[in-house]
Amino acid sequence: MILTVTPNPAIDLTYRVTALEPGETHRVAAPAARAGGKGLNVARVIAQTGGAAFALTTAGGAPGLRLADDLEASGLPSELVPVSAPTRSSVAIVDEGSGVTTIFNEIGGALSPAEWRALGEAVERLAVPATALVGSGSLPPGAPDSFYAELVEVARRRGIPSVIDATGLPLLAAAEAGADVLKPNRRELADTVGIDDPVAGARALLAAGARLVLVSLGAEGMLAVSATEVSGARLPQPLAGNATGAGDAAVAAVATSLAAGIDDPALLVRRATAWSAAAVLAPLAGELDPAYPEYEARLVLS
Amino acid sequence: MILTVTPNPAIDLTYRVTALEPGETHRVAAPAARAGGKGLNVARVIAQTGGAAFALTTAGGAPGLRLADDLEASGLPSELVPVSAPTRSSVAIVDEGSGVTTIFNEIGGALSPAEWRALGEAVERLAVPATALVGSGSLPPGAPDSFYAELVEVARRRGIPSVIDATGLPLLAAAEAGADVLKPNRRELADTVGIDDPVAGARALLAAGARLVLVSLGAEGMLAVSATEVSGARLPQPLAGNATGAGDAAVAAVATSLAAGIDDPALLVRRATAWSAAAVLAPLAGELDPAYPEYEARLVLS
Repeated sequence: MILTVTPNPAIDLTYRVTALEPGETHRVAAPAARAGGKGLNVARVIAQTGGAAFALTTAGGAPGLRLADDLEASGLPSELVPVSAPTRSSVAIVDEGSGVTTIFNEIGGALSPAEWRALGEAVERLAVPATALVGSGSLPPGAPDSFYAELVEVARRRGIPSVIDATGLPLLAAAEAGADVLKPNRRELADTVGIDDPVAGARALLAAGARLVLVSLGAEGMLAVSATEVSGARLPQPLAGNATGAGDAAVAAVATSLAAGIDDPALLVRRATAWSAAAVLAPLAGELDPAYPEYEARLVLS
Repeated sequence: MILTVTPNPAIDLTYRVTALEPGETHRVAAPAARAGGKGLNVARVIAQTGGAAFALTTAGGAPGLRLADDLEASGLPSELVPVSAPTRSSVAIVDEGSGVTTIFNEIGGALSPAEWRALGEAVERLAVPATALVGSGSLPPGAPDSFYAELVEVARRRGIPSVIDATGLPLLAAAEAGADVLKPNRRELADTVGIDDPVAGARALLAAGARLVLVSLGAEGMLAVSATEVSGARLPQPLAGNATGAGDAAVAAVATSLAAGIDDPALLVRRATAWSAAAVLAPLAGELDPAYPEYEARLVLS
């Protein structure tokens, strides 16, 4: 199975309003609530596409119980390390008139040293049967910047590929640890290496030690940058839809491919772009449009 | 003590952003969480001003536990009728740049017939030692429109005054039951009786059976309309501050006065306007600027 690690999960709460009017009071129905966090979305996409995924995350307080209930109801195999800080929320306000979504992401609560140890031990134990290891999303406040680098080390010791979707120092440390694939988006990459050009930025992460960098460019598709080549893929025209979770679908595509022994950058970027596009056309993060296998044929490659 | 009844309480969650940008993702700290609901604010103001208040409300699910914890921590005497629907949330987004607050009020969950009975029995029991009875705020979905009218009946049977702050059919039914004071704001009054002019609208509620109608007009102050007179009060200039809870402070002023045997409309509208203004200058709903006793002298009366 592919192990996804989500150190800073959230309860995703979605409110719908007919029109978001700053300064006004809106009457709203109780929000749709769903276990959220990038690694959980990655695991859901892997499961939807017929792969075996296992989600490792944390859970704290009353929202942590809600997270556990939702994961259990979804049938996604998972393990939740108990932590004392309540699991954070992420609040989305969907303006049904304009289709625009406004998001408020709580930063999350800090983990104690004992809780970090428990999470690390769970990674070691669950990596034994894993065929690939994925680390996704923000770290809680006070987290060691080396957290994703340590995941890369665990994967290397087990002889399995690692995929890291992060930003800033944790991303840079994962590069230095020799991650197989890093998947920042263009802004995260620029913020991390201080270089605006995505190819030059990706090469900075390669120089630090990463083997391959996939950079998502939104409507312009995706680039795979390795030491020897640059491959790109995009849809012929931009998609209108729900971009939340598009990057997670790309990570799911990469992890699924690497676990199956496919590591050609041109093939990885094609599948990642196709699944990412299929995620935009699905209603919820962590889901693909069921026609996802047909998307690869439509791509414009470079 | 003054009994306040809050049939549709909420957990008030407040997020602060440097600038609210629709369509964007905002990183936010965990929200300030506080037991909310208009009757709870009324009780808090009564307690702050030296009165004895008792808050009766409902609590359900994990948010209900949070409500109970917050009420216990605040020291406000209260009784919570357990209900199965989780206590709703009200989400406020404070834009710290513009000072503008945007609010998302969940509608709330329905009560079962047995839960309505339990709430009604608690009202009867707690009304025995009460010196006034206050009913405040929205009703949960599926509530009987007669709920506030029944509070008025209970108060009449006990020989104590009743104050109702509501809107629509529940407000109209409270008028028909002969409520001592109704406290809609201008828009709620217009929505209830279909008359835009606040004096004419208030007279429609008097004709229905209410003894006195206080209409809050925002920056233009407040009007008290009885069968024989119209009294007004306002500050010499508008206040900038937090208008949430200003109406609840007015209700607290009216209930405190009635419980002390003061029912002259001109005196009621003065105290209500003064406390309402003092609430605008306090940081949280349910609090008054400690200088509230000085506000009455500043009012412009009419």
